[in-house]
Amino acid sequence: MIQTKLIPRTAEAVEPPMLIKTLLAQSTKYEPQREIIYRDLFRMNYVEFNRRVRQLANVLTDLGVKPGDTVAVLDWDSHRYLECFFGVTSYGVVLHTINVRLSSAQILYTMNHAQDKIVLIHEDFLPILSAIKDQLTTVEKFVLISDKVYTDPIAVGDLPTGFSGEYEALLGNASDQYDFPDFDENTWATTFYTTGTTGNPKGVYFSHRQLFMHTMGLATYVCGYQAVPFSSVTDVYMPITPMFHVHAWGFPFLATMLSTKQVYPGRYEPELLLKLLLKEGVTLSHCVPTILNMLVNSPVANQVDLTRWKVIIGGSALTKGLAKGALELGIQVYQGYGMSETAPIMALSQLNDLERNLPVDEKVDYLTRAGRIAPFIEMHLMDDEGNFVPHDGHSLGEIVARGPWLTQGYYEDPECGAALWKGGWLHTGDVASITPDNWVLIADRTKDVIKTGGEWISSLDIEDLLSQVDGVAEAAVVGLPDERWGERPHALIVQKPGAELTAEGIKSGMQAKVQLGELNKWYVPDRILFVPEIPKTSVGKIDKKRIRSEMKDLILQ
Amino acid sequence: MIQTKLIPRTAEAVEPPMLIKTLLAQSTKYEPQREIIYRDLFRMNYVEFNRRVRQLANVLTDLGVKPGDTVAVLDWDSHRYLECFFGVTSYGVVLHTINVRLSSAQILYTMNHAQDKIVLIHEDFLPILSAIKDQLTTVEKFVLISDKVYTDPIAVGDLPTGFSGEYEALLGNASDQYDFPDFDENTWATTFYTTGTTGNPKGVYFSHRQLFMHTMGLATYVCGYQAVPFSSVTDVYMPITPMFHVHAWGFPFLATMLSTKQVYPGRYEPELLLKLLLKEGVTLSHCVPTILNMLVNSPVANQVDLTRWKVIIGGSALTKGLAKGALELGIQVYQGYGMSETAPIMALSQLNDLERNLPVDEKVDYLTRAGRIAPFIEMHLMDDEGNFVPHDGHSLGEIVARGPWLTQGYYEDPECGAALWKGGWLHTGDVASITPDNWVLIADRTKDVIKTGGEWISSLDIEDLLSQVDGVAEAAVVGLPDERWGERPHALIVQKPGAELTAEGIKSGMQAKVQLGELNKWYVPDRILFVPEIPKTSVGKIDKKRIRSEMKDLILQ
Repeated sequence: MIQTKLIPRTAEAVEPPMLIKTLLAQSTKYEPQREIIYRDLFRMNYVEFNRRVRQLANVLTDLGVKPGDTVAVLDWDSHRYLECFFGVTSYGVVLHTINVRLSSAQILYTMNHAQDKIVLIHEDFLPILSAIKDQLTTVEKFVLISDKVYTDPIAVGDLPTGFSGEYEALLGNASDQYDFPDFDENTWATTFYTTGTTGNPKGVYFSHRQLFMHTMGLATYVCGYQAVPFSSVTDVYMPITPMFHVHAWGFPFLATMLSTKQVYPGRYEPELLLKLLLKEGVTLSHCVPTILNMLVNSPVANQVDLTRWKVIIGGSALTKGLAKGALELGIQVYQGYGMSETAPIMALSQLNDLERNLPVDEKVDYLTRAGRIAPFIEMHLMDDEGNFVPHDGHSLGEIVARGPWLTQGYYEDPECGAALWKGGWLHTGDVASITPDNWVLIADRTKDVIKTGGEWISSLDIEDLLSQVDGVAEAAVVGLPDERWGERPHALIVQKPGAELTAEGIKSGMQAKVQLGELNKWYVPDRILFVPEIPKTSVGKIDKKRIRSEMKDLILQ
Repeated sequence: MIQTKLIPRTAEAVEPPMLIKTLLAQSTKYEPQREIIYRDLFRMNYVEFNRRVRQLANVLTDLGVKPGDTVAVLDWDSHRYLECFFGVTSYGVVLHTINVRLSSAQILYTMNHAQDKIVLIHEDFLPILSAIKDQLTTVEKFVLISDKVYTDPIAVGDLPTGFSGEYEALLGNASDQYDFPDFDENTWATTFYTTGTTGNPKGVYFSHRQLFMHTMGLATYVCGYQAVPFSSVTDVYMPITPMFHVHAWGFPFLATMLSTKQVYPGRYEPELLLKLLLKEGVTLSHCVPTILNMLVNSPVANQVDLTRWKVIIGGSALTKGLAKGALELGIQVYQGYGMSETAPIMALSQLNDLERNLPVDEKVDYLTRAGRIAPFIEMHLMDDEGNFVPHDGHSLGEIVARGPWLTQGYYEDPECGAALWKGGWLHTGDVASITPDNWVLIADRTKDVIKTGGEWISSLDIEDLLSQVDGVAEAAVVGLPDERWGERPHALIVQKPGAELTAEGIKSGMQAKVQLGELNKWYVPDRILFVPEIPKTSVGKIDKKRIRSEMKDLILQ
């Protein structure tokens, strides 16, 4: 940092900090009548939403929660979760969004590690709580969340032992007056845990400033550049990525700031998702490929109009096969790239003036890319020696980044934090090339890249090839040790119902491409195995670690 | 500010400051091929623009300009000015945008007060320089700007005495490599002077952070909420408000960040403006009412298609008469509200879901309002005792504001700075009411409001009434002392060519409205005087101070 001349400030002059409450204040400014909807159970406008956010702050204050304390939530995607995004954070309290798909032991670890003081928990997760309650070291109080209050309040029944109240009842009894204070914009706002390949879950964390800036970056990208065209006037938003999963990609903050109509689907049920999508006129969602795959292959998908629906895919790569299937239904698919450590948006598949008008077949090539580098994000590729690799569209390197919304470490894990930020760049662990026009082409996770005969090949590229074979529903490729080549690719395939594929048939199809010079021969997997299901992680990604460890024997048998 | 828990930071972790260079970095990220055009003389794409910005930084560095120094510009709206917006500021130098419409004495005062070190000056302003050059106390070097280099380089001729070079020649000889450094986001970026009613011009100033945030606020407003629908994909921007006038309302920063096609018209010439507008497909401009009036009344306005053109009016109120005239030509008019002290955007005439679909006649009522309070701006009304006045749409008070981009004082004028920020709110000196749905209804400047018989009445309201009388081209109303009532309104009127209005005719028309109960009788001016021209300030506003002082005798004769 060089020395410069700073602006002088009059004693009484005010320059407000950038806080989550600054986003919230926008939500009733122009379109207070727009609605936030929860399943087919509850709807309210933004005035009511703001009232409830203030009531929530009073409920927490009354329960003894002070600025600097941590409040944890276990819930499906709901209006209540959205209220926590704003109501918990807006008076300086940290929101811990618990990943309900982790094992009980991992959830216990994260809750103790984050020092949760109050826990808001949906009744569906009470069994998890029962299993770990005795081992919680910091939690003082529990609040019950139940959907029954919207249909049959009496059925809610008695509170479980040790609970301070039920969410709706507590809100109903709380004052709706609360003056959210100003405080340092670097105040800790949210925290959640990411499960790596080894060791305990690691806690990432974001400040008010970072979430404000993430919202600005997202707004600039989707509203300004129309990467995924979005405006307050025409769009209706429904997340289909859990809110505990990196702030549902930050869209709830953007949608609330813009007072967009929002739909929260609770627990994901394909029929209800489709019903909400049509009934509420949803125009923008984001999800992992698995969910899109499920909807595209749903028997009713052909019978309804999905042409207004834009959906951003992330978490795993969008294959060309799935992208084409969705486009054929009129769904506008895009892809995004990011991770828990990056708030998460680092790239979206933004088409420029030239690409926007390409025929669909050529467009698919772009839409299935990880995305173009997001506004305000600086991204480079780094080799094993820490040198930058050119952005030429083919040289591979680990993606490293800087930007206004990247976690500044792992909570109380200085060693991993230092490794994450080695040399002043956030190391993503993803291997990619970057084109001169800023497209990010993810090759693989550094740990999943297959090193064979001196070449680095991408397990994802082979999965993409396999996904385009008729009859293939899903494919997973891992590298396994090989005496001669170092590593060799091995594939798992899930067949579509009724398909009758054989490993030899698929391999000979690939060999034909090798003969034509379209494919390098080392891409052909040594072995292809058909399985009923591919192991997934808690966030729906292919669990390559598990495939490698548990299935090594099976594959190599 | 309450005490909270801040996020911990790993030693090597980076969170970049928000700088003007962060906006610039966006300009070649997605659409580097889009163009920036200067009159009919010069065009380049964003890659070339970035190259020239870096060359400019090298030119200034070579001339001895260091971070913390001030560089002044006297130019018409040009690509060069845009290069200064980025090239001067991006290495920590302060950009002084000189108001070329001030008197020579005022320009001299501002240049010495701002401690300008280097001056970039268009040849049109050399006569001003000649008059003041000997009295400049801090300027070390001059750079000549000439449009002749684009048509007849030889005609540029010899440099005036004491000049270090000509802009294009210096750029051409400079390296196009420059690594813009990181520095504190509160670094002083721009400064310019506002002429009040008394005393010397006062210097306002803005930091990198403030201009970044102003750009975010503007992007959120025009791209997200579509207050004035704007997107990188479909819009072409041309300012018709000088770039020395509050950063041309901040749009050049937004347009550059979004790599929008931009057109800079140089000195405003109605024929060239119209030609550029049509030839380059301009879709968004902003100007004062005078310019719009000139274009609407231009003989060719009826013969060309202006239906894609959105224009935001500011500086003075957009009258219903002018708004209707523009709408009839298909021009989409909007209004904005702000001032030199506020970067400037504080409001835009954003229509909400309900208002957007109203018939044109009803829409005009909204479009001629000052605007709705801008994103992230907090605005209140204050009475003489410093109490807040309710936002009920009729109670009047002085507009006071807080927000992320308001000047934090006046440079080296602590007394005026303290008055501006008295009580922790920026005092605008504008009297208004605010509706419950955040429309700002400007009544008057505090100093122009007419206090008659215990009532506050707005001189602007009367001007608006008069502007709707057939045959009235322009009207100005001031309050003058009256023994019985304290003050009484007096009007100046410019007639349209061929109109034959009389004071009595206009007054009796107003009296008829009084009879019908549509108007309070104290709104009828005591005297109406017909004049060939209404005195204006350097920025094109009606000069009420001059009207009151110089014309008092004439009116009261």
